[in-house]
Amino acid sequence: MSKELKNASEQYLGALEQELRSVLNAGPGSPDTFYGMMHYHMGWVDERLQPFQVSSGKQIRPLLCLLCCTASGGRWQQALPAAAAIELLHNFSLIHDDIEDASDTRRGRTTLWKIWGIEQAINSGDSMFAIAHLAMNRLIERQVEAATVVSALRRFDETCVHLTQGQHADMSFETRQQVSVDDYLAMITGKTAILLSLCAELGALIGGADAHKTAHFAAFGLQLGLAFQVQDDILGIWGDESVTGKSAATDVTTRKKTLPILYGLEKSESLRKLYALPENSEDFVRQVVAILDSCGAKTYASEAALAYSESALSHLEAAQPTGEAGEALRQLADMLLRRNS
Amino acid sequence: MSKELKNASEQYLGALEQELRSVLNAGPGSPDTFYGMMHYHMGWVDERLQPFQVSSGKQIRPLLCLLCCTASGGRWQQALPAAAAIELLHNFSLIHDDIEDASDTRRGRTTLWKIWGIEQAINSGDSMFAIAHLAMNRLIERQVEAATVVSALRRFDETCVHLTQGQHADMSFETRQQVSVDDYLAMITGKTAILLSLCAELGALIGGADAHKTAHFAAFGLQLGLAFQVQDDILGIWGDESVTGKSAATDVTTRKKTLPILYGLEKSESLRKLYALPENSEDFVRQVVAILDSCGAKTYASEAALAYSESALSHLEAAQPTGEAGEALRQLADMLLRRNS
Repeated sequence: MSKELKNASEQYLGALEQELRSVLNAGPGSPDTFYGMMHYHMGWVDERLQPFQVSSGKQIRPLLCLLCCTASGGRWQQALPAAAAIELLHNFSLIHDDIEDASDTRRGRTTLWKIWGIEQAINSGDSMFAIAHLAMNRLIERQVEAATVVSALRRFDETCVHLTQGQHADMSFETRQQVSVDDYLAMITGKTAILLSLCAELGALIGGADAHKTAHFAAFGLQLGLAFQVQDDILGIWGDESVTGKSAATDVTTRKKTLPILYGLEKSESLRKLYALPENSEDFVRQVVAILDSCGAKTYASEAALAYSESALSHLEAAQPTGEAGEALRQLADMLLRRNS
Repeated sequence: MSKELKNASEQYLGALEQELRSVLNAGPGSPDTFYGMMHYHMGWVDERLQPFQVSSGKQIRPLLCLLCCTASGGRWQQALPAAAAIELLHNFSLIHDDIEDASDTRRGRTTLWKIWGIEQAINSGDSMFAIAHLAMNRLIERQVEAATVVSALRRFDETCVHLTQGQHADMSFETRQQVSVDDYLAMITGKTAILLSLCAELGALIGGADAHKTAHFAAFGLQLGLAFQVQDDILGIWGDESVTGKSAATDVTTRKKTLPILYGLEKSESLRKLYALPENSEDFVRQVVAILDSCGAKTYASEAALAYSESALSHLEAAQPTGEAGEALRQLADMLLRRNS
């Protein structure tokens, strides 16, 4: 991680954790079960609600929000409530996604619903969603103008609706035979990119950027999210397993509808036939990858990722980010776009 | 229904329906599945998303909100977004409650999750929850001051957290042996009364009531909700089946933990023994009711209901509601408290 980004991470993320713990009612003693389930999901306690600490990861989303605030000339402390709210929104959606996808583990730990049951897990997610809004509401305590808080909340909830539309589309895909590349792009916009866009937009809005610059920050987040997701799809087939930690075969054997695969299915009759077979052998995976290579699916996806990356970077420059935070934003984009894992 | 209440209902509820349809994206044509599921739950379309109309009921909650606004000297039109938001909050929670309680029908129709599956129903509820917030956000378009909108949203989400705490407690009750009367009161506060309190409080806040009167309106709603719920518990055992439409036996055979039953279990050793048996015969129900009668459970619950009712009415008077809306509020309380069904 380059210097400016590292400095910002160190400065921001401790304060973020404090904000999150405060809004989620985390005191010194053991939490009750109601809050305890949420603390478990956040990685703060174990299954018996005893103190525990898992690495909280890179926390790209809140970092992006706080950096865009500073790079717009604002004070990052003012945007902390929004950064915390977005992190809670993301985590609430994971609690419900894990139920919807019947996932047993998340970040190497048993999922909330597997421990406390589907009923309690639905309710716990609902509660975290409400608390995410209360986190946003704290902007008013940081002297953000009331009219700005109302606008920020509107964009927050418009994004939530968009996210549920993305999830709706994603779940419908699994039972649909025909999914076009356009359907897919709309879906990943709603599932991933729109949230990064919100991070950047709220940071800029709270930082005092004008409407024009705020729109460029939002577009930067969106394109960055699209580039990241398409790269993830490429790594899901051609990535180095020893680096990515997941087998390239998984995206193929689970028939996941990712960009290279959808492109391949559109272009190649033999892939369509092969995919219709109830096959999951290693040989099957090799055949699928060979067809994807020969029909240009990798090239297509790589070009798409590059185009999104370039668009992201040009929107970032158009937003005229200032100071060290501006430098850190360029480094963050670089880190996300040049990754090989 | 008395004159003032009838007039207010007729005037308000058409506008409310328009507001709800507008925020839920209901146009002239057939909705897409994403919005269609929500329209189905609201009773606007059938399973195939074709136009349909079910009676929308008395809509006590939005009515209470709009009346408290007018009775505080405000214009009810300004509170419409809050009334719509509360109705959506209530409906979102029903979508998730139906999954959590594994209910097959709601208002005589198949529940959303039974038609579209648990996964889509969780997501649809999440979406309606986000849209409820967007409904609230429209207060700003009705010239409500931004600072008031932020306060109203904070109270809205604090109430949402309280509601999920109530639901959490309710679900925990089902697996708990010991539930005290105090636990029960905390639970029904969170499950029912707190939402009526929010209705009255937001109406007063938007109508321009001062902090003192707003607090009395909120307390009126809370006590009204408690009185209503305890009456419901009494009717669930001693109600006239031909009037209530549900068998008195159900609350007993399902071992529902209502106020008279919890009181009986605290007071009577023989009821505790009887309740532990795997029995559900008509004779069993008769024996349970006889014990409840003899240990004073009905008297206890009736006195509790009366005390909440009187408290509700005295808070209403302390709030000094004005004009026809004030009269309509008294009639609404009367209707809820003197009901026999």
